[in-house]
Amino acid sequence: MVESIEKLVAQLSHLPGIGAKTAQRLALYIIQQDLEDVRELATAIYQAKKNITFCTQCGNLTDVAHPVCGICSDSGRDSSTICVVRDVRDLMAIERVHEYRGKYHVLGGTISPMDGRGPDDISIAPLLERLEKGNVKELLLATNPDIEGEATALYIAKLAKPYHVRVTRIAHGVPVGGDLEYTDEVTLARAIAGRRDLYD
Amino acid sequence: MVESIEKLVAQLSHLPGIGAKTAQRLALYIIQQDLEDVRELATAIYQAKKNITFCTQCGNLTDVAHPVCGICSDSGRDSSTICVVRDVRDLMAIERVHEYRGKYHVLGGTISPMDGRGPDDISIAPLLERLEKGNVKELLLATNPDIEGEATALYIAKLAKPYHVRVTRIAHGVPVGGDLEYTDEVTLARAIAGRRDLYD
Repeated sequence: MVESIEKLVAQLSHLPGIGAKTAQRLALYIIQQDLEDVRELATAIYQAKKNITFCTQCGNLTDVAHPVCGICSDSGRDSSTICVVRDVRDLMAIERVHEYRGKYHVLGGTISPMDGRGPDDISIAPLLERLEKGNVKELLLATNPDIEGEATALYIAKLAKPYHVRVTRIAHGVPVGGDLEYTDEVTLARAIAGRRDLYD
Repeated sequence: MVESIEKLVAQLSHLPGIGAKTAQRLALYIIQQDLEDVRELATAIYQAKKNITFCTQCGNLTDVAHPVCGICSDSGRDSSTICVVRDVRDLMAIERVHEYRGKYHVLGGTISPMDGRGPDDISIAPLLERLEKGNVKELLLATNPDIEGEATALYIAKLAKPYHVRVTRIAHGVPVGGDLEYTDEVTLARAIAGRRDLYD
């Protein structure tokens, strides 16, 4: 194979979820595009890396020109509520539904002893510092409803206790449009335990 | 979301098999790498496009500095046999098994009336020109064993008839390591119809 394409395939296979075959397919696709389009792709990759950093306050993505992100600096959003998420993708997912109007805190992972990630490896201390400042009323723990996410939520809930803030957890239950028959037992049990009154 | 990352996500979602979610995941991965690594990826993309072109003889990939590819210009390979493949990926797949030592011809697609691709849209005329020159003895039709691949192979076989070359087709049958019970009926029927004598 030609050297430049070998290099490109090697580079692409480093990306997460891209195996050798997919890398080859992408490489062949790329060299069949117009030079201008390929230049745009290469530039977008390099510029994103050069221009983007993490918000010094919450850990969200932000432009290097603005150390504090658009959400943290948005005075229209409620600063007394902090939604704690595992990563920027989860933050983006929550932003897409336009239901939440508070601020965020991105942990950058979950506690996972199996993978050697302890509480000090994720952004918990900076979260406690934000609570320390005293103007937070609610901490919404929106880590994933899996073992690591639950453990991380419980751990943070314990640490947050002395700050006397309301600590909430996203609701578990049957997904909208889901089918009771095919819902796993744990989820169904939670959906029943967490049942809500229709008239209250 | 920050503009540079939006641009990157948009660019990545143009790639084949990369949807919006995967593009976002890749973009977030990229901006978390070292600047030097990202520069290498961006450079590999641009350089591959800039340095690679298609062999003027067979359609394989080649360096812009060498209009005829490494396989076509390899005098150690048998020029009297041409293996006809749909695209460069199939050529690469055949090269990996080190079984074939002849030359290639890359069609750049298959005939597919459903997708509006006729014989003139793929590289059939240049193949006939190669046959015209007279030193080809065998044409191995290695298009995929699917409807379009079969139709393309039959079409080329018909056009190649006047040149009096041996026209062969790759064998169909039960894959090595496969299981008769789980082999589809068409493949199994072909495996039986194409049975070979063990003593001949």
